[in-house]
Amino acid sequence: MANSRFEYVKQFEYSDNLLPNTWIVVRVDGRGFSKLCAKYNFEKPNDRRAIDLMNAAAKAVVTELPDITIAYGVSDEYSFVLHKTCTLFERRASKLITTIASTFTSYYVHLWSTYFPDTPLSPPLPSFDGRAVCYPSVQNLRDYMSHINNLYNTTFWSLIKLGGFDAKEAEKFLAGTFSADKNEILFSKFKINYNNEPEMYKKGSVVVRDYELVEPGSHNVAETIDNVAEPVKQSKTQDENDRKRRNKASVVVDHLDIIKDDFWDRRPWLLSNKPGKIPKQI
Amino acid sequence: MANSRFEYVKQFEYSDNLLPNTWIVVRVDGRGFSKLCAKYNFEKPNDRRAIDLMNAAAKAVVTELPDITIAYGVSDEYSFVLHKTCTLFERRASKLITTIASTFTSYYVHLWSTYFPDTPLSPPLPSFDGRAVCYPSVQNLRDYMSHINNLYNTTFWSLIKLGGFDAKEAEKFLAGTFSADKNEILFSKFKINYNNEPEMYKKGSVVVRDYELVEPGSHNVAETIDNVAEPVKQSKTQDENDRKRRNKASVVVDHLDIIKDDFWDRRPWLLSNKPGKIPKQI
Amino acid sequence: MANSRFEYVKQFEYSDNLLPNTWIVVRVDGRGFSKLCAKYNFEKPNDRRAIDLMNAAAKAVVTELPDITIAYGVSDEYSFVLHKTCTLFERRASKLITTIASTFTSYYVHLWSTYFPDTPLSPPLPSFDGRAVCYPSVQNLRDYMSHINNLYNTTFWSLIKLGGFDAKEAEKFLAGTFSADKNEILFSKFKINYNNEPEMYKKGSVVVRDYELVEPGSHNVAETIDNVAEPVKQSKTQDENDRKRRNKASVVVDHLDIIKDDFWDRRPWLLSNKPGKIPKQI
Amino acid sequence: MANSRFEYVKQFEYSDNLLPNTWIVVRVDGRGFSKLCAKYNFEKPNDRRAIDLMNAAAKAVVTELPDITIAYGVSDEYSFVLHKTCTLFERRASKLITTIASTFTSYYVHLWSTYFPDTPLSPPLPSFDGRAVCYPSVQNLRDYMSHINNLYNTTFWSLIKLGGFDAKEAEKFLAGTFSADKNEILFSKFKINYNNEPEMYKKGSVVVRDYELVEPGSHNVAETIDNVAEPVKQSKTQDENDRKRRNKASVVVDHLDIIKDDFWDRRPWLLSNKPGKIPKQI
Repeated sequence: MANSRFEYVKQFEYSDNLLPNTWIVVRVDGRGFSKLCAKYNFEKPNDRRAIDLMNAAAKAVVTELPDITIAYGVSDEYSFVLHKTCTLFERRASKLITTIASTFTSYYVHLWSTYFPDTPLSPPLPSFDGRAVCYPSVQNLRDYMSHINNLYNTTFWSLIKLGGFDAKEAEKFLAGTFSADKNEILFSKFKINYNNEPEMYKKGSVVVRDYELVEPGSHNVAETIDNVAEPVKQSKTQDENDRKRRNKASVVVDHLDIIKDDFWDRRPWLLSNKPGKIPKQI
Repeated sequence: MANSRFEYVKQFEYSDNLLPNTWIVVRVDGRGFSKLCAKYNFEKPNDRRAIDLMNAAAKAVVTELPDITIAYGVSDEYSFVLHKTCTLFERRASKLITTIASTFTSYYVHLWSTYFPDTPLSPPLPSFDGRAVCYPSVQNLRDYMSHINNLYNTTFWSLIKLGGFDAKEAEKFLAGTFSADKNEILFSKFKINYNNEPEMYKKGSVVVRDYELVEPGSHNVAETIDNVAEPVKQSKTQDENDRKRRNKASVVVDHLDIIKDDFWDRRPWLLSNKPGKIPKQI
Repeated sequence: MANSRFEYVKQFEYSDNLLPNTWIVVRVDGRGFSKLCAKYNFEKPNDRRAIDLMNAAAKAVVTELPDITIAYGVSDEYSFVLHKTCTLFERRASKLITTIASTFTSYYVHLWSTYFPDTPLSPPLPSFDGRAVCYPSVQNLRDYMSHINNLYNTTFWSLIKLGGFDAKEAEKFLAGTFSADKNEILFSKFKINYNNEPEMYKKGSVVVRDYELVEPGSHNVAETIDNVAEPVKQSKTQDENDRKRRNKASVVVDHLDIIKDDFWDRRPWLLSNKPGKIPKQI
Repeated sequence: MANSRFEYVKQFEYSDNLLPNTWIVVRVDGRGFSKLCAKYNFEKPNDRRAIDLMNAAAKAVVTELPDITIAYGVSDEYSFVLHKTCTLFERRASKLITTIASTFTSYYVHLWSTYFPDTPLSPPLPSFDGRAVCYPSVQNLRDYMSHINNLYNTTFWSLIKLGGFDAKEAEKFLAGTFSADKNEILFSKFKINYNNEPEMYKKGSVVVRDYELVEPGSHNVAETIDNVAEPVKQSKTQDENDRKRRNKASVVVDHLDIIKDDFWDRRPWLLSNKPGKIPKQI
């Protein structure tokens, strides 16, 4: 029997390559994490160990996949940004989202005992779903990042996790509210003084490669990058140098204001994809 | 600040619901498993512990997701079949493939120490990518399953893993060959007598819910199911009964010939999605 | 200057091949036909000349594209069915829908003066949009066809075109109504006695190749076809014979009950894609 | 009978909205135009009447669909550009491409007798297929436009239409050639002195709304537009003013160098989508 009779089944596969020259965001979300939080007695609304574990898993993902330029996490979700010139897996959506969701899960489970030494995992185990979205311009990308990092989110989730609202009710409740309103809600309903919250919970966590910060003002990376039409061709030596510098950089977790220009201006490599200078070790 | 300025970023999300009334196969594949095999000294071409671990992870996935009617694995890949009437996650491809890849990974990592007690995992950790394909008819589905379970596959992978071929060379080498040719290749090149190989390696592993086998011949489920136009509406009580019976059934791993009609004829629930009779405990 | 600098733009093209082994329905709809009806004084709710023109255009499309096995039209819309084994344009959705919409438009404009000899066309000219949908089983396909051909449709459009309802209002108004209710609505609101309506308006128009009708009952094409996994391979001579017979068959317009089994049973070629016997000329 | 039994068929429809904030190019191509050229004795390689007819049809399409900012045609193909903020038909690919292909066809057939008064159309009639592609940045869009308008294209098509090459042969033949090479090929093989060719054939045809040209240099629309993250919100009065000015502008056909910056710099409205000043009538 030759293999031919069954070969035709491959024709049912479909291609799902994402549009070139757009920023790819792969977001992973914890599945059924309210149950998980209850089962393992996570503190509400933020459990330090759980967030540290999320960050450790995200850091491992960024380390293993150098095409990821920045990752950003709040609560039980993490967003991984692939540069708009990225050609990893020919930009196939399926392969990108499953690889990232699976790698994240792998480290989450493997590192669990480090962060919860007294609480062994038992079925059903934690898992994460994921999806990809393309953003054409730097502004779109930054708006996406800002969208998840803000007071809105804290209030929204407090309403759900502490206030017993469901998602629709919370959305409706917050429609049209301003910062002051949300601060007031947090305080009056849950005795949360948002300004006193630790940066980690207020700002979320950002994972980046650590290069020397630059002085803002002397350049406009966003514009330059928006103008880029296709991946810059450089020599193999340059590629190799970039690769080495990227591997040499430490991947760090921090809690910073990613909405403001300053964050992006001082880290031009996030948008340019050109590795920065490795900081001198002291 | 109301949340409105950033809300527009949601418009960039796209829908990827899979065509209704088709069988969904989600296949997960080990990423970089040749390196992994080397790192942990897996036996070639088949390592019993590694296969047992794959099977245990697959069993957990089938147990957690009752919409999966059958799973089938060979080597470092596993295919999960969702019934054509399945509406899990509104059939969104992203959500289906990431959930399955992530759950599989979760158990694979968690159960690693059970199957490799003396070989702790270390980064880079194992991970799995995945993809979904739709098959409109029972015959398409069975042809897909047969496509992965056969002599061709064993020979193909032996050429790659033992013979140093790359995928293209192996494909070319096997083009137009017959069973006898492949048996000869396996024996002359790798001293493998295919007939003497354990069933587990020859047949791959199948994961199903365990109901009482029926006598074949009295029915034709494939035809009936191909004719089905949309999910059968039944009463809530019936739904509930089905759910209970499905949960009550043990999920079992076996090594059977899934190409022949007999396998399907004796397990009509695989195609009908109607749970069978729970075998009596002895 | 070599051409290379701009070549990269081709990478932005995406593939949109429709799932194999499913029935493709391409439906074209008149754009802004309420205005068009007013402009050229079409009779309401049905204008004989306008329907004859639609049918003539559809007949030309079916004649030019032998992969279409049946077309069905009501009002200002026409649905063209491509057999589930069809591989025209590699099943690319864009190419299929634009080719059919454009060919339909071409004949509609060209033949306009035949059906409206005293009313020359003037800008804005008539045009048609289109879309493709895949149906996995014969029953899905027949349900789609039935969906557009029925009393519901007549009543729905009467409410909109004669009764001044918008689409949502009409849908709401008809929700849960039965045949008797709709007959009553048509009569009480618009003095339409549905039973007295000409078959052409009640049944819509069907365009098929004209072969000798067969006796129903001796076969079940639907089941056979649902079981088909991939295009049947036949000799080139057989292909050529089929092609010739298909070209020899006249393409005819008729007004028949396409909901009932009888229509399909007596025309097995619609589902089998195997041309029937050419009727003897008298 | 309520309508419910068949309603489910709508679930098989899929959404195909194109990514927001990207330039949409819809390209239509003549189907089987080599046969058509032969049938109606078009002059080779360029027939003045045929090109005038293409341009007249394109002009009508741009007039009817104000969302199109520029159209560009060579030979039997025409590309229509929708601004990146366009939300026509919710950016559904099917609807956009069929509407444009159908409208184009409608005018092509309707205007045929104006350009070919002595050559009536007969079946098979002319038709056009179409497809959509998204380009994220202005540079991508301009590279696409340049890609179709150049010496390469003339040489490529001369090889095919005059030299009997097929597409693959012509592509291979031209791989790596420079301008001088192509000029030489045109001259030595086909006695075509490219510089003496009429602008219309060398440059192709561009269809735009006619506003007063501006002085280049004082602005950078491309950068501004690349930075745009979402459609600018303006007052209803402004929207209405824009609409009026757009309708007031004449749609003109011209033969210009669209590769150079000058073309775009003097017509900022092409990229900004903000109508220019209506030229004074003399």
